[in-house]
Amino acid sequence: MGTAMKAIMKKVAGLGLSMEEVEKPTNLGPRDVLIKVRRASICGTDVHIYEWNEWAQSKIRPPMITGHEMAGEVVAIGSAVTRVKIGDVVTSETHIPCETCYQCKTGRMHVCKNLKILGVDRDGIFAEYAVIPETVLWKFSPEIPLDYASVMEPFGNAIHTVSSTNLLGKTALISGAGPIGLMAIQVAKVGGATTVIVSEVDPFRIEMAKNNGADVVINPMEKDLVKEVYSQLDDGVDVLFEMSGSKKALEDGLKCVTMGGEAAVLGLFGKKIDIDFDSLITMRGITVHGITGRRMFQTWRIADELLRTKKVDLSKVVTHVLPFEEWDKGFELMINKKCGKVVLNLDTISE
Amino acid sequence: MGTAMKAIMKKVAGLGLSMEEVEKPTNLGPRDVLIKVRRASICGTDVHIYEWNEWAQSKIRPPMITGHEMAGEVVAIGSAVTRVKIGDVVTSETHIPCETCYQCKTGRMHVCKNLKILGVDRDGIFAEYAVIPETVLWKFSPEIPLDYASVMEPFGNAIHTVSSTNLLGKTALISGAGPIGLMAIQVAKVGGATTVIVSEVDPFRIEMAKNNGADVVINPMEKDLVKEVYSQLDDGVDVLFEMSGSKKALEDGLKCVTMGGEAAVLGLFGKKIDIDFDSLITMRGITVHGITGRRMFQTWRIADELLRTKKVDLSKVVTHVLPFEEWDKGFELMINKKCGKVVLNLDTISE
Amino acid sequence: MGTAMKAIMKKVAGLGLSMEEVEKPTNLGPRDVLIKVRRASICGTDVHIYEWNEWAQSKIRPPMITGHEMAGEVVAIGSAVTRVKIGDVVTSETHIPCETCYQCKTGRMHVCKNLKILGVDRDGIFAEYAVIPETVLWKFSPEIPLDYASVMEPFGNAIHTVSSTNLLGKTALISGAGPIGLMAIQVAKVGGATTVIVSEVDPFRIEMAKNNGADVVINPMEKDLVKEVYSQLDDGVDVLFEMSGSKKALEDGLKCVTMGGEAAVLGLFGKKIDIDFDSLITMRGITVHGITGRRMFQTWRIADELLRTKKVDLSKVVTHVLPFEEWDKGFELMINKKCGKVVLNLDTISE
Amino acid sequence: MGTAMKAIMKKVAGLGLSMEEVEKPTNLGPRDVLIKVRRASICGTDVHIYEWNEWAQSKIRPPMITGHEMAGEVVAIGSAVTRVKIGDVVTSETHIPCETCYQCKTGRMHVCKNLKILGVDRDGIFAEYAVIPETVLWKFSPEIPLDYASVMEPFGNAIHTVSSTNLLGKTALISGAGPIGLMAIQVAKVGGATTVIVSEVDPFRIEMAKNNGADVVINPMEKDLVKEVYSQLDDGVDVLFEMSGSKKALEDGLKCVTMGGEAAVLGLFGKKIDIDFDSLITMRGITVHGITGRRMFQTWRIADELLRTKKVDLSKVVTHVLPFEEWDKGFELMINKKCGKVVLNLDTISE
Repeated sequence: MGTAMKAIMKKVAGLGLSMEEVEKPTNLGPRDVLIKVRRASICGTDVHIYEWNEWAQSKIRPPMITGHEMAGEVVAIGSAVTRVKIGDVVTSETHIPCETCYQCKTGRMHVCKNLKILGVDRDGIFAEYAVIPETVLWKFSPEIPLDYASVMEPFGNAIHTVSSTNLLGKTALISGAGPIGLMAIQVAKVGGATTVIVSEVDPFRIEMAKNNGADVVINPMEKDLVKEVYSQLDDGVDVLFEMSGSKKALEDGLKCVTMGGEAAVLGLFGKKIDIDFDSLITMRGITVHGITGRRMFQTWRIADELLRTKKVDLSKVVTHVLPFEEWDKGFELMINKKCGKVVLNLDTISE
Repeated sequence: MGTAMKAIMKKVAGLGLSMEEVEKPTNLGPRDVLIKVRRASICGTDVHIYEWNEWAQSKIRPPMITGHEMAGEVVAIGSAVTRVKIGDVVTSETHIPCETCYQCKTGRMHVCKNLKILGVDRDGIFAEYAVIPETVLWKFSPEIPLDYASVMEPFGNAIHTVSSTNLLGKTALISGAGPIGLMAIQVAKVGGATTVIVSEVDPFRIEMAKNNGADVVINPMEKDLVKEVYSQLDDGVDVLFEMSGSKKALEDGLKCVTMGGEAAVLGLFGKKIDIDFDSLITMRGITVHGITGRRMFQTWRIADELLRTKKVDLSKVVTHVLPFEEWDKGFELMINKKCGKVVLNLDTISE
Repeated sequence: MGTAMKAIMKKVAGLGLSMEEVEKPTNLGPRDVLIKVRRASICGTDVHIYEWNEWAQSKIRPPMITGHEMAGEVVAIGSAVTRVKIGDVVTSETHIPCETCYQCKTGRMHVCKNLKILGVDRDGIFAEYAVIPETVLWKFSPEIPLDYASVMEPFGNAIHTVSSTNLLGKTALISGAGPIGLMAIQVAKVGGATTVIVSEVDPFRIEMAKNNGADVVINPMEKDLVKEVYSQLDDGVDVLFEMSGSKKALEDGLKCVTMGGEAAVLGLFGKKIDIDFDSLITMRGITVHGITGRRMFQTWRIADELLRTKKVDLSKVVTHVLPFEEWDKGFELMINKKCGKVVLNLDTISE
Repeated sequence: MGTAMKAIMKKVAGLGLSMEEVEKPTNLGPRDVLIKVRRASICGTDVHIYEWNEWAQSKIRPPMITGHEMAGEVVAIGSAVTRVKIGDVVTSETHIPCETCYQCKTGRMHVCKNLKILGVDRDGIFAEYAVIPETVLWKFSPEIPLDYASVMEPFGNAIHTVSSTNLLGKTALISGAGPIGLMAIQVAKVGGATTVIVSEVDPFRIEMAKNNGADVVINPMEKDLVKEVYSQLDDGVDVLFEMSGSKKALEDGLKCVTMGGEAAVLGLFGKKIDIDFDSLITMRGITVHGITGRRMFQTWRIADELLRTKKVDLSKVVTHVLPFEEWDKGFELMINKKCGKVVLNLDTISE
């Protein structure tokens, strides 16, 4: 292998990304690992970086390599690495914790105070090779197809959200059937939810939601969500999983939660929201879990187990596997929302 | 309806039971409910009473009506009853709490200090009519077939045991595939267990375990359970559900639990057991949940939901539905263990 | 005793209350209990009813007897009452649950769907006698002085809020040092909080907060709360107890919570609030507990224990014990906020 | 500083220890840290090694340096160390986890499958210098006196045990008032226990228990423990902390736990025990937590906070601080049980 490699970059501040030839990384810190990337999937965050929205402008410092969801092979290790060895096939947590703050020291690395995110705060993994600290690597079970392994990161978001409560014999409302919402449907069903209702406005995603096992899908543009939920379930739902980032979805979703129930909120609203905290949360005795990242590595273990034993079928979520060179087609699909997860295959790169 | 009714009684201290004609109960306390019993199922406890074992001799004061698992219809109510009305079809928690002790006052009625058990401490429900306090009645969902409704009580034991932990993405070992063990297999699978291993020695029950969804069934008479479990799962199991009442099963089961894992013990050993508490529990950092009864009524709600939505299929557990008059055939099946649950149908009684 | 009694009433829609002579209640349902009220304390809710604010106008239907916090003696019982007997000295949960809804059936009576509140939805206890269902009565320990027993209800709010997390070795911020906030300070300290910071603007309450054991009191009108908290504690606080009903207090309070920490919100904001849910809750991985009422009766038991063993000293909160006839002076104190809890003593009523 | 140092060693298999001159360690792995030991405390385990009991014979491979509880200063660091720097004053978790097994990956390093214990599986810290991996070091707050810092390890056992439940408003029984039991008394009181009862047979320890805040101390050789506990508390205790290693204490302790309560067991029985599991645990609905080690580092954080804020006073537990050279006097005290914790001061070593 030579010293150059292909990478998808944000070269300059502004719209778009580009595939570039760059130097293959060689400089490994003592606990760093060099990964030959074999699969990478596109996240909504990558689309924000592509579109150069307000958030991206505030966070991203070009030029940099983008992307964070990946699966690949260990090809070199730093001098102090003990957790993986050359040849291991791994995926990666994308939140890199400092390992020394209060949070890291007390089992909460996912909310590390000094978190660095792959492809946001440092070079990402849309490239033939990437340098990643051993701390965040996950050796997944061999039963898991490589095509789904890079998707374990957003799958982990779905699991982190859903596993915030014990769903056995309980009912759930999931607002938003984007890729994480779709995976949450499957996870909620696997976890024992007796009825999973989904609210979604997009016809493509409504179909996807049904295909992923939703018992009922309600389009809140067409029907009164709260009324519909209570017509299905006298007591409303035990838990809301908010994954839409819509204020209206949060408000109506909380109204659907039974008194004393729970909500887990992963969706971001992108701005302040004006809500009746009293009647939605306090007076109903609701517990709300703010969810970010994935627990390291409790969430990954569950993800691995659910895929190893085929309890969850990611073929219903991964709608496209494209050659790495067709990355722009992948972004187009994501921007038009005519897809579930889009995976880029780097094995196809012509040497 | 006349003033006499048929009932299965322990008339005198000694082996056996008999079907008798007795006075239909008429005396209702202010919060009592008169139930026309329509289905009753036979529990291992009833068999102990039949067989007049040591426990039965110490607890049962003949003459009395036996039986506690039932489903039936409300036909009369006491002056202060508000929770049910005539015509309601109900099943019943069989542990009658006092409602005033510390436990009852703090959400733990199932371990009430003054508990009275139907068919043990007071007349039971193997009879055409039974008097039961409104406190313990459960109006089950109409989607649940009457033939399975009386089984909700032992089903509740399975749920109470399994729901002591969140099984999503976890592995479990169930020791003992009697009726409750069989239901626990289904519940564990529904609750997200990725691998459910069962240990059982009886060939009939081994088949039942497979049919109820066990991923692996191990006969500990033929194979070394601990070795087998670790050959299936490198980390052992996350949780043990002990339902066999065998000391060896508890010991080997705890050895199969991964360090820091959990065990829920429902099985009774019937005598003191000599165990290495240090190495089985303390040094492994295991949490052990002693399980008795069913949480009133969190467990019943889950039972209802799982049956309402057909997540659990009790037709794989209820092997026999017999006319009430053939009760002795039911006991014979139970004594020979050639059955799952045996349900008696009282609708067939000739008037 | 005659057939008339004194009571503090809202006679007509409009400002104020009045002491009236009314018929002593005599009509007891089967599970009702007649209480001779001996102590009653004034709640902020009573002040709202007095002031006839928007909430009061929407909820209260005059004429009615107001008040809900009480301690008294059982003087008569309904035909089916079993939990108390004549002569028992009791206080009372003020939220009367239906005992039949999903919430009531599953250990969550405090969020009963059909809740009736004493002194709001039905006649209250600012009267010589009151009728209360046995379901909500609490026989408190004899070590607890009668003067503090009626205060166990708001004390229960403090406990319900604080006991939502295990505080041993943790740090807490309490926003708002009204009576419940003051009691929360004591409870948090008793529960093992190592540092309890209080934010409060009122000078009188600031002194009360110090006297009740706050380690640090910050006046957010004078200093930047967030900056001050982080200057005291590098990691911020583990948990926020929001008891002020101020939007700014919620926002700043959540900013003070360490990543992955918790908040319990009892304070009501009285209107919609515009908050950055993403950065305050979701991206910080915070869990927020909406708190209402008191758990029946887990919270009451803790309240009883803390008072029985003098772990909490309510003499630091109860600033005034007034004769019942001086009720208007009590309301004046409450309106001017120059008090902690004000207790009315009905033993002083001249027969 | 020269190349030799003093160390307390088990030179050969057999009774006793000896102080030796050995080579100062110089070989640091990339993540190793060289500590100049300043305080070391003697654990019961060290006494077992001294006495060369059965356990010691099976585990210890002489010659080796003993001891594991220490506080000291970082004087050199390996090439990849990032968590501490030269000059930091630290104490240390003594269980060294592998960081790669299932347990380590899922927040349970204290039950690592490949645990190595300082002074047991590898050279310990009864020496002027010790090599310890950065993973297990804890930088304690400067408010904590050095004399108590090495005791944070057994203090952590007390905290790990007591923090297994939320004690606010609850009652506790602690069986055994050795050093960890004594610290557990203080922690339980700080954590909100309203009544802490201690069972202990040794007169010296009975006094220590009282001095550490026990509300009641019962000598089970003189009185019937179960009867005494129930005479003090009608409902028994909410939780048992078993720290005696006595089978009788476990049995009687569990009988004292209220129905549905909890037990946390740290004490080791040293052999199989014959117990009535049914009536002690299962039928009472008790949850039993097996406790080993300390949670890394949730437990350490709590320990640090409780000492930083002086909620716990270890001067009531540390009865002796001796010069390192008087180590044999320390062991004598420990063997005769006429002490709490014995701390060795290495600052006194003549250069």
